[in-house]
Amino acid sequence: MVGREGGWRERLFIIIFEADTRAGRYFDFLLIAAIVASVTVVMLDSIPSIHAKYGAILHGFEWFFTVVFTIEYAARLMCVNHPTRYARSFYGVIDFLSILPTYASFFYPGLRALVDLRLLRLLRIFRLLKLAAYVDEYVQLARAVRASRRKILIFLSVVAILVVVNGTLLYVVEGGERTAFTSIPTSVYWAITTVSTVGFGDIEPQTDLGRAIASVTMLIGWGILAVPTGIVTSEMTAQKFQKEKVTTRTCRECLTTGHDRDARFCMHCGTALPRYESDETYRDNAKN
Amino acid sequence: MVGREGGWRERLFIIIFEADTRAGRYFDFLLIAAIVASVTVVMLDSIPSIHAKYGAILHGFEWFFTVVFTIEYAARLMCVNHPTRYARSFYGVIDFLSILPTYASFFYPGLRALVDLRLLRLLRIFRLLKLAAYVDEYVQLARAVRASRRKILIFLSVVAILVVVNGTLLYVVEGGERTAFTSIPTSVYWAITTVSTVGFGDIEPQTDLGRAIASVTMLIGWGILAVPTGIVTSEMTAQKFQKEKVTTRTCRECLTTGHDRDARFCMHCGTALPRYESDETYRDNAKN
Amino acid sequence: MVGREGGWRERLFIIIFEADTRAGRYFDFLLIAAIVASVTVVMLDSIPSIHAKYGAILHGFEWFFTVVFTIEYAARLMCVNHPTRYARSFYGVIDFLSILPTYASFFYPGLRALVDLRLLRLLRIFRLLKLAAYVDEYVQLARAVRASRRKILIFLSVVAILVVVNGTLLYVVEGGERTAFTSIPTSVYWAITTVSTVGFGDIEPQTDLGRAIASVTMLIGWGILAVPTGIVTSEMTAQKFQKEKVTTRTCRECLTTGHDRDARFCMHCGTALPRYESDETYRDNAKN
Amino acid sequence: MVGREGGWRERLFIIIFEADTRAGRYFDFLLIAAIVASVTVVMLDSIPSIHAKYGAILHGFEWFFTVVFTIEYAARLMCVNHPTRYARSFYGVIDFLSILPTYASFFYPGLRALVDLRLLRLLRIFRLLKLAAYVDEYVQLARAVRASRRKILIFLSVVAILVVVNGTLLYVVEGGERTAFTSIPTSVYWAITTVSTVGFGDIEPQTDLGRAIASVTMLIGWGILAVPTGIVTSEMTAQKFQKEKVTTRTCRECLTTGHDRDARFCMHCGTALPRYESDETYRDNAKN
Repeated sequence: MVGREGGWRERLFIIIFEADTRAGRYFDFLLIAAIVASVTVVMLDSIPSIHAKYGAILHGFEWFFTVVFTIEYAARLMCVNHPTRYARSFYGVIDFLSILPTYASFFYPGLRALVDLRLLRLLRIFRLLKLAAYVDEYVQLARAVRASRRKILIFLSVVAILVVVNGTLLYVVEGGERTAFTSIPTSVYWAITTVSTVGFGDIEPQTDLGRAIASVTMLIGWGILAVPTGIVTSEMTAQKFQKEKVTTRTCRECLTTGHDRDARFCMHCGTALPRYESDETYRDNAKN
Repeated sequence: MVGREGGWRERLFIIIFEADTRAGRYFDFLLIAAIVASVTVVMLDSIPSIHAKYGAILHGFEWFFTVVFTIEYAARLMCVNHPTRYARSFYGVIDFLSILPTYASFFYPGLRALVDLRLLRLLRIFRLLKLAAYVDEYVQLARAVRASRRKILIFLSVVAILVVVNGTLLYVVEGGERTAFTSIPTSVYWAITTVSTVGFGDIEPQTDLGRAIASVTMLIGWGILAVPTGIVTSEMTAQKFQKEKVTTRTCRECLTTGHDRDARFCMHCGTALPRYESDETYRDNAKN
Repeated sequence: MVGREGGWRERLFIIIFEADTRAGRYFDFLLIAAIVASVTVVMLDSIPSIHAKYGAILHGFEWFFTVVFTIEYAARLMCVNHPTRYARSFYGVIDFLSILPTYASFFYPGLRALVDLRLLRLLRIFRLLKLAAYVDEYVQLARAVRASRRKILIFLSVVAILVVVNGTLLYVVEGGERTAFTSIPTSVYWAITTVSTVGFGDIEPQTDLGRAIASVTMLIGWGILAVPTGIVTSEMTAQKFQKEKVTTRTCRECLTTGHDRDARFCMHCGTALPRYESDETYRDNAKN
Repeated sequence: MVGREGGWRERLFIIIFEADTRAGRYFDFLLIAAIVASVTVVMLDSIPSIHAKYGAILHGFEWFFTVVFTIEYAARLMCVNHPTRYARSFYGVIDFLSILPTYASFFYPGLRALVDLRLLRLLRIFRLLKLAAYVDEYVQLARAVRASRRKILIFLSVVAILVVVNGTLLYVVEGGERTAFTSIPTSVYWAITTVSTVGFGDIEPQTDLGRAIASVTMLIGWGILAVPTGIVTSEMTAQKFQKEKVTTRTCRECLTTGHDRDARFCMHCGTALPRYESDETYRDNAKN
């Protein structure tokens, strides 16, 4: 209780790192909008004709978003208890990398090639996807995918072997300097495009034997396509029976998220957690 | 009971807006046939060689269907209790837009470009798909898709991020004015065709590094393809255990559909509903 | 019991139309082999280089298979109780059509174009797939597909509307005589190749707006792909709990198949059925 | 108990053929690394530019791996009880074939074409995939696929018929010497690429009728795609309820794997098995 009235830093922490209060949600919405807008600016700037016409305006927008993200980065560093620990965490590094290129290219114009690093900003949306309204579904999906991790790994190694053996077969049957199957890696690339049913069409078997092998590859690939679907689906059906309500409560010491509503200490580092706060809390307070 | 003998307007309402009586079903069948025929006329007319030969005949058909749909639109306006409310509803606007272009191009020949609006007629089939015989399956499917709405939204945002990051990677690796990857948006378009396993083949990686990244993109896309299937399938399996019989009963005040067989008041606006009428009702009457 | 010793016609009937005895299975295996071999002959004969070299030999084989199938057709007519009824049934017509072309092209050489009708022989394999060893799985699959028939129909009509609307959109955006989108039907064809993720690549959007619409089409198609899978999977999971053993018993009057082991009368026309006979029956007889 | 202290041959057997001890797992990891590395060498050597520059070095690596695999092959022969029986087993033959080509091309340089046989080494990974950590998932997947074997066979024959009938239809409609549909086999190859949604794009219908048939083929193929997924998924969901812990214990007489932890005799040939040994066993021993 004492920790909760700890002033503006804690207030800020709840707004920036959590999403169960109204202010926290607004912050997340605005940040997602800013990320999407800034990525759109980078993408538009890469089109030669648009760069020629509106390059200067887009450059101005870019500086605006860089300043906004710099302020946000500073605010994050200020409101956590251990700034250096945050700065070295996964999202801390991404936050830093996504503002660095604009400054770097200002001081050293030769570093312009780095500007595409700015698209790393998109990865930050994953953190924000934990918007209160969607956190349940997000956690369920992530859990189902994580639970089928090992089976998918085995499945991928079977596909890898299949693809190498098939690609080599076609290299032996069709290969040669004048054909499209110039080397085994190229043939394996063809096998991957075929088994995944993408089928670009730049490399194709021309002989009857090659086409027969390709047909078998396609049918096998088709049957195999059923396996990852089966894995994920059976996992999801199983998960339907073990739902639980999740929060975005975040420990200020170690930044672990997802504590229970009635948790009083961080489940990872044991620090006391401030009282859980959400829209319902406010409503409860209003009632009393 | 009193409301039911309320004359031809209510009779018409049951025929046009509902599909649980024999007359209602005939009306729906005829209307679907007319929509499909009129859309076929528009499509055939767009083929230059056919337009040159049979343009006049097709023009005649077009006027015939326009008049039919105008009469239908007038009948719908007449039999509802609040014509303006219907005119401003989703289907009301579509009904209007699908007859407008033919008249408009008659008075202002310059508006011929609008004629493709007539294809909006197709959207009206969704209303008619609620044919008594299929309404159960339609409602089940719609419910399963609606229940997985949020998960699919999260899934789509993950795919969007994946596609932008991958497209940019290939732009950095292969990009340049002389290659197919001319800008980031083009590269992202390539990434979408690849992840969705469509693979047109007009834009393709040519370097070894680009092909390696493309291979990883395809395999990831393949695994990810399993997720929406898992979502919808687990939802459908769950729905198998909560079936219930549905009707096409429609409130004449607010046009809400799907009231229970024994409902006496609209569940949305509270208006008294006329007695439920279906083939079985007639059979019951015949028995007594 | 009396009917059973009814002579060679009934013996023949059990061998040709059923597959629960050893002789019946051998007959089915031989017939499948003959069908596959005769289809292979037709296919090889269509390759110009092979036709030039081995045309005469293949012609000989063709006559051999035609005579074999003629004898089989005659045997089928002889052993059923109502030959004309069989001749007018679905498989009766196919049996006739698959021997007709060879004779026809002998008497009227101008009818050679009909020879491809011979490939209809393949459809006859569906009847033979009911080999005792696989009949269980075949019936289960067919039942699951039949149970999801209505949902798939609704699904297909939604896809049809989607494809027409999207194709027209691209015709409006990209269409013109010099582009690939020459008419609405061509654009709809493109939309079908895209939504089904086939993506041939001969027709492709070239403008930015066209590509944006195409991207949305692909992602929608991807999500929609999940629906038929969900339908069939949930049906199959449900079927896992209602297995039952099936036979290939066939009524000699109306040719209905699949009667229960202990059925004594045809479930459709009420004719008395001969005693059920299978390998186990023989084994039982040997024991006594 | 007596058999267990039987000396280094049994020790070696447990390390090479099983994967429940620490040494066994290390051996498997090293072997997988060696296989992947040697396959990479073969693939790189097939690229003309790399072969020209680094051919000699890659040749050296190749000899190194061949010697390593020869030693491994000798060790396997030494530690089993019946070397000839092992040499004639599936993996015994593959082990031999994957070292043969390097020696053969040394003595008879004309046999260089055989070197691609070395890629058969990849198949040996399937044996090693039974790494203790993944054996559970591997066995589950294999069991689900094996259980749906018959249904998939029936499914494939339906697809085969569909593909032949559709391919022939397009040959009849579009075929001719100047078109892409030169013969029925080529048309069937096109039908396979279409139904499996690969869609290379080298062979394509050009007429309106051909495109209409192709559209139907795609939509049917799309619906059919749902069937194998349904088969595998329903099988996997069912398997979720019959888990059991598996081992990699291998009989030294007949090389059957997967004996229970407390099995005392081989389930196939009845030979007495040595005591089961795993990391947990060591831990148990340390405790006592």
